[in-house]
Amino acid sequence: MTMIPLSNMFVARSVSGRRLASFRMPLAFHPEIAHSSLVFVDEVRRFIQDCLSRVGVPSIKLRCISDFLVAADYRGIYGSGLNRLEIYLNDLHHRYVRIDADPVVISETPVVAHVSGNGALGVIVGNFCMDLAVEKARRSGLGLVVAKQSQHFGMAAWYAFRAMSNGFAGLVLSNAAPLMVPPGSQESVMGANCLAFGVKGKNTHFMLDMATSAKDIGSIEWAFMKNDYIPHNWAADECGVSTCFPSLALSAQRLFPAGDHKGFCLAALIDVLCGVMSGSNYATRIPRWNVECQQGNPNLGQIFLALDPCYFIPDFMERLDDFNSRIKNSRPKDKMHPIRLPGELEKLHMDYVDDLRALPYPNILLAKYKVIADMLCVKPIQLAFGSCPARKKCFT
Amino acid sequence: MTMIPLSNMFVARSVSGRRLASFRMPLAFHPEIAHSSLVFVDEVRRFIQDCLSRVGVPSIKLRCISDFLVAADYRGIYGSGLNRLEIYLNDLHHRYVRIDADPVVISETPVVAHVSGNGALGVIVGNFCMDLAVEKARRSGLGLVVAKQSQHFGMAAWYAFRAMSNGFAGLVLSNAAPLMVPPGSQESVMGANCLAFGVKGKNTHFMLDMATSAKDIGSIEWAFMKNDYIPHNWAADECGVSTCFPSLALSAQRLFPAGDHKGFCLAALIDVLCGVMSGSNYATRIPRWNVECQQGNPNLGQIFLALDPCYFIPDFMERLDDFNSRIKNSRPKDKMHPIRLPGELEKLHMDYVDDLRALPYPNILLAKYKVIADMLCVKPIQLAFGSCPARKKCFT
Repeated sequence: MTMIPLSNMFVARSVSGRRLASFRMPLAFHPEIAHSSLVFVDEVRRFIQDCLSRVGVPSIKLRCISDFLVAADYRGIYGSGLNRLEIYLNDLHHRYVRIDADPVVISETPVVAHVSGNGALGVIVGNFCMDLAVEKARRSGLGLVVAKQSQHFGMAAWYAFRAMSNGFAGLVLSNAAPLMVPPGSQESVMGANCLAFGVKGKNTHFMLDMATSAKDIGSIEWAFMKNDYIPHNWAADECGVSTCFPSLALSAQRLFPAGDHKGFCLAALIDVLCGVMSGSNYATRIPRWNVECQQGNPNLGQIFLALDPCYFIPDFMERLDDFNSRIKNSRPKDKMHPIRLPGELEKLHMDYVDDLRALPYPNILLAKYKVIADMLCVKPIQLAFGSCPARKKCFT
Repeated sequence: MTMIPLSNMFVARSVSGRRLASFRMPLAFHPEIAHSSLVFVDEVRRFIQDCLSRVGVPSIKLRCISDFLVAADYRGIYGSGLNRLEIYLNDLHHRYVRIDADPVVISETPVVAHVSGNGALGVIVGNFCMDLAVEKARRSGLGLVVAKQSQHFGMAAWYAFRAMSNGFAGLVLSNAAPLMVPPGSQESVMGANCLAFGVKGKNTHFMLDMATSAKDIGSIEWAFMKNDYIPHNWAADECGVSTCFPSLALSAQRLFPAGDHKGFCLAALIDVLCGVMSGSNYATRIPRWNVECQQGNPNLGQIFLALDPCYFIPDFMERLDDFNSRIKNSRPKDKMHPIRLPGELEKLHMDYVDDLRALPYPNILLAKYKVIADMLCVKPIQLAFGSCPARKKCFT
């Protein structure tokens, strides 16, 4: 395989003059510590499938899980991608997640369904539920599926995209293990519950995927992995004081809500719908991710809604393009930093990966998976172009 | 009428020992400037009805509008209560709002409806839509109503309570005139779009009513009315710099989003659903509230959802009580400041008003309505117990 230095690819990109001036890298690509290597997308997928296969995942489910993890990395949501495979492997290996389980419908009407995930892997439950919601929306214009007995389901936007690819708007909510400290509290009582909403326009789309904490736990794990600092007001240490050290943040498990009381209230709303209403665990009834998860079933709750926006207005897609352009074209304070629509940084990241034709991973992550590959007796991840040199600041 | 000094009522409350230690007053009751007077609830209602009647509102709609405004003051949301009557009177007098209009259903299925508000007053449209959503939820477990051609509809929680009083969970969303500055932008391109969700438990309830800006415009108008300062990071002046002066904030109309980019993204999500999808105006297509509203129809969009939570889990109400108590009983940093559930401060305010048996209004507001009463030839607001003395700090 020909080795192409990453810096050369940047020169080529610079010569072609595409988007470089306005390109702002997501946090995951901090220029100072990008001791990264590139891996072809198919190779990541192959490695994930090999590992999952070794812990007993049936072949019919392999593609679904690997696509889902690779998609997170492709969008730059590295905390929910390959990085999370280790936890999934551990859960599957110890049977905390039921490999052979499939979700079942408990009750349904033409519009609403109540589903039990039966402790299957989150993505299996999520795909099933969103497909069911889409099926209902196709008949009735609207489909709402409420799931219990589910697990951590990774990047929520994945399921919204699934609705969008069928021509519907998709809304996804999930509760999570208690990691968030309400304002004025000493302890975490609520998950950094997430929300995703996506819908297609004619030439653009709208995709919001957010946790209700200032930053999700995956980003802190990712910073820890890269030996990076985290900004203040993402998380607190054991004493409840804001910390810049991801190790302290991960051991304390105390994330700050986004927008103080409003982020906390929004997380509570999601927990009432996903947890209290679905029949799953909620708030402090959910065992913690790292510490207690191995002693109990997290039994998370999730909500999937598919909706046909063209039922209300036939030219919805043109109107969405107009809406996006009105925000996009508002006057920025600094012309070098244009206003970002929800999901725009992720779109830029996808363009970036398309140009690279491969996914960049920190060498420290790849070294970890080398050990895991040896343990599971699977072929380690093969690099695409060798190790990446540090990125130049002018391109970030 | 016997005059009872307000301070005596506090002594009585103190003697009875109810909740005083943990009682934290909402912002509206800043102790230093409480030059307020008490007005009986019935008297406020009488005054509102008299004024509305004078500008031609038919008697059948009087009670609905007055109840709605009084309810906002009762919950301590003073920016959406009597304070807003002046704007409604102005809109009704100049026919920017159609007095004789009623909302109509454009299209519907057993679960979904699309409604045109026909430019009627927001509360008339809102009540109609939530009642329709409840009617659908009664038959199908779920009802979704999407409205266009509506107006500013005040306190969103009002409509969620309407669903709750029928035994359903109620979700309400609305877009609004562009008042919010996206991070990195020089101008307001989005409304401080609001969200309310309410559902009843056995002994408690959950009620979230929030704007997606750090603070809603009504609170800034209220601070202006009381000649008070506003905290930093609520709003910017004309130069885009955070200001403490409500006058500068009101003229610049640049509110900061809650939680920076997340609040902005959430506002955008609400606008896509309420504005783009409903067929109403959205983003910068909505004329500004004070400046342009008189030249054009705001044509706002709103969403009303009623849902039967017991469809999914029969003991939902007991579970909600447990959820609330888990949050409420988490360890606070300071025992004098317990963790507040969404809607709890409003509940405390309602208890406070119940104890007072009247609503406290700043004298400056009452003086304004004295002038309006004279203009409209209606009987001015009669005070319940005379002017309030300044509140004692120990009770705040």
